[in-house]
Amino acid sequence: MNYTVAVLGATGLVGRTMMRVLEEQHFPVGRFVPLASENSAGTEVLFGGEPYKVQTPSAEIFSEVDIALFSAGASVSKAWASIAADAGAIVIDNSSAFRMDAGVPLVVPEVNAEQIFDAQGKPAGIIANPNCSTIQMVVALKPLHDRFRIRRVVVSTYQSVTGKGKQGLRALEEEIAGKTFETYTHFHPIAYNVVPQIDAFTDNGYTKEEMKMINETRKIMGDDGLMVSPTTVRVPVYGGHSESVNIEFETDFDMDEVRRVLESAEGITMIDNPQAQQYPTPIDCYGKDGVYVGRLRKDPSHARAINLWIVSDNLRKGAATNAVQIAQRLIGKLIPKPERIAVQGSI
Amino acid sequence: MNYTVAVLGATGLVGRTMMRVLEEQHFPVGRFVPLASENSAGTEVLFGGEPYKVQTPSAEIFSEVDIALFSAGASVSKAWASIAADAGAIVIDNSSAFRMDAGVPLVVPEVNAEQIFDAQGKPAGIIANPNCSTIQMVVALKPLHDRFRIRRVVVSTYQSVTGKGKQGLRALEEEIAGKTFETYTHFHPIAYNVVPQIDAFTDNGYTKEEMKMINETRKIMGDDGLMVSPTTVRVPVYGGHSESVNIEFETDFDMDEVRRVLESAEGITMIDNPQAQQYPTPIDCYGKDGVYVGRLRKDPSHARAINLWIVSDNLRKGAATNAVQIAQRLIGKLIPKPERIAVQGSI
Repeated sequence: MNYTVAVLGATGLVGRTMMRVLEEQHFPVGRFVPLASENSAGTEVLFGGEPYKVQTPSAEIFSEVDIALFSAGASVSKAWASIAADAGAIVIDNSSAFRMDAGVPLVVPEVNAEQIFDAQGKPAGIIANPNCSTIQMVVALKPLHDRFRIRRVVVSTYQSVTGKGKQGLRALEEEIAGKTFETYTHFHPIAYNVVPQIDAFTDNGYTKEEMKMINETRKIMGDDGLMVSPTTVRVPVYGGHSESVNIEFETDFDMDEVRRVLESAEGITMIDNPQAQQYPTPIDCYGKDGVYVGRLRKDPSHARAINLWIVSDNLRKGAATNAVQIAQRLIGKLIPKPERIAVQGSI
Repeated sequence: MNYTVAVLGATGLVGRTMMRVLEEQHFPVGRFVPLASENSAGTEVLFGGEPYKVQTPSAEIFSEVDIALFSAGASVSKAWASIAADAGAIVIDNSSAFRMDAGVPLVVPEVNAEQIFDAQGKPAGIIANPNCSTIQMVVALKPLHDRFRIRRVVVSTYQSVTGKGKQGLRALEEEIAGKTFETYTHFHPIAYNVVPQIDAFTDNGYTKEEMKMINETRKIMGDDGLMVSPTTVRVPVYGGHSESVNIEFETDFDMDEVRRVLESAEGITMIDNPQAQQYPTPIDCYGKDGVYVGRLRKDPSHARAINLWIVSDNLRKGAATNAVQIAQRLIGKLIPKPERIAVQGSI
């Protein structure tokens, strides 16, 4: 069975990565429908070795689509997600538009894949893909929470410029090349600098990015009592996001068991041999789909806490790969629509 | 009154910065004696606009020196500090060689300047300058500890390549220029990367750098019960070290009072206006002598905790400036030695 799959935002960094991951995972795409704004409409993208002309979204197009991967920003998602869902497509939305809506599941397959479907086995019309920093953290937190109950997490991030898309990447490249800007994509210079601000500040002194790590983590983990204290920081890196994470458990624990729990958890690859200088770094994780964990050690300052270091490619597991994994879970119960030539994007 | 001042390691990054800070602070240098290893002996350095020929250290030279600033690594300090002190110089040692020795004061002037002298007002023969990451953190912790008693600190660092001296800086420059190495100064590539390792690992899974932040903080603050949980990380930055710091107090507190305590503390400059994107970054703090604090906010995960962001130039307050500040405290009670032409380094 093959599915009609649309990617809205097909010319963006995440959209292009979604296409690469669909190809790599041999996702059963019958028809591929690349969509983008007026600015990019008419340009060509390659999928499965074939050129496709990018179209602007319409209700008619979505009526032929089985799965629509959205990654064109929150305002585009707000404009089109309901139209697409009403037209019969299942929307997997990478923006923040619907993440905290009570009726919209916020899904990391390793954590809460069951929420893709309701009690009757019917998939949600809109499924939200979480924030990149949150995804890689909850993949590591989930098996530990199940076993030891997590009380509190203190996390400091080291986030890739690709979190701001092509513009964020270009800012670093141009600054490294010695070009200066009057206005900075990352608020301040990012070449040879670190900037403790990602997204705008809210009234409580935390950024929107930090509030996502607090609120989305609770929703995905299904535990409103889970406490998160985040500091999110942009660094001049493109390979992925890194996180220094301190985790306080409610119960006593054995370090060997913590290690076994992480080693056997879905989606996690342990790279943790300090004496051989082995731990994950963004350059090593670039272009890979996993969540990489290292530097696991007992916290000397607290009897029931540990420290660890989590790295993942924010364009992959932090965005595109997680969305495609949701789509993979979906198609087990999904019946593809009959093929119609009208929406065929291939040229 | 003018003093004979030696700098051992005069051709290194910290040594050169010590010379700049002595000049800028108009330190009363009567004679200047630049010292270094055989490799650098005979080269010239500029101090106060005059060229000086670099000499190798000897007991005879130190017998004429009032204050010897050491920054040539722990093994050189171990070889020469006692000889210099026995010869009558007061050694301010920037290496880790003596920091944890019970008889050696470990001094950050804003925190424990009184330890420079014993009860009789006699200065210690060797005074240790703390680790760079530790210095900037304790300057911020001290006033808070005095007022609210700190129970626990969770800190993640973003450390400049200059912490590895000229070699560390060159590694970043050459990697950015596209040159690759078989062995990496920072264990892994540092251009476009972050590396969660600074110095070697100890048996407990923490690096020596992290153990310094635990042990030196306790010694400087004079509180063996102060708990520190550190993760130290190298980032591709040269302007200074940044630290994301979570601080848990023993007592309840008022955020306005926390802010007032920090604003009025010695050595701290608050840069904290999030709505205007104002907070310290390494590029802004490069070449400056202060400790810069921003992003002060209540921790949403703990009733008695805060988060803040500390940046300082690791070559300045983290090394050279702190050493010169110790020297400034010293000379209030020090009687300079009579001048002798023999050790005059100027050529």
